[in-house]
This record gives sequence, C-alpha cells and structure tokens, in this order.
Amino acid sequence: MITDKIGNRIRELRSHTGLSQEKFAQKIGMDRTYFASVELGKRNISIVNIEKITNGLDVSLSEFFKDI
Amino acid sequence: MITDKIGNRIRELRSHTGLSQEKFAQKIGMDRTYFASVELGKRNISIVNIEKITNGLDVSLSEFFKDI
Repeated sequence: MITDKIGNRIRELRSHTGLSQEKFAQKIGMDRTYFASVELGKRNISIVNIEKITNGLDVSLSEFFKDI
Repeated sequence: MITDKIGNRIRELRSHTGLSQEKFAQKIGMDRTYFASVELGKRNISIVNIEKITNGLDVSLSEFFKDI
C-alpha cells in the first residue's frame, strides 16, 4: 500500500532529523497522534499534509517520493 | 497553493496522453467531476488518489512531483 510506503519514508527521514515523533509533530504544527498514525501507514494522507511534512523534513516532494 | 500546482501538473501530463478529462477519468475509474475539480486545484487530494492518477499518466510519483 502507498500509505505504508509513505509512512516508512517519513519515519526514515524523520529519524535523520534526530527528532522524536512528538517533537517533529510539534515542530510542524501537526497533532502528535495523527502524525504517529501516518508513520504507521494508517492514513490516506492529503497533499497539504504531505507538503507540511516534507517542508519539516527539508526535502522536496520529488526527493521525498524517490524510490516510492 | 500546492493544490494548484498539482492540478496544473496533472492537466499538463494528461494533455500529453491525448485524452479528454472525461476519458482519462473513465480510464482510471475516477468520478469525472471530482477529477475536473482536482485539475482546477480545488481539492486537497489524498495520496491514494494521486497514485491512481500517476498510474494512469504512466509516471512515477517522483517524476510527477519534479519541479513542484
């Protein structure tokens, strides 16, 4: 499922930031439990929220989706 | 807005297919009026629907988001 791939990719890149789920969610102004469920692949996330996350990860959308 | 950029990119790539909005929406099994509103940038489209569209356009997600 694409939602699983997205979640894994976010977790991978977020771990590079050194921030916990909670700290990262706080940084981008996203609900912590929502963000946790995205990383678990449980959300059909919208493009506006994907962009919010990729901005927080400091990667372009194209870079984010590489190998997905 | 990201939704405008997505809509413009879809319209650009869909026009290369030679298919009308209606024919393309039909091909990918998406409601025609919903698809039209996506091209107009009026929808905060989900990743599952983005993937459905990029599959129909025969481009990878990374290629789709290039320059967005």
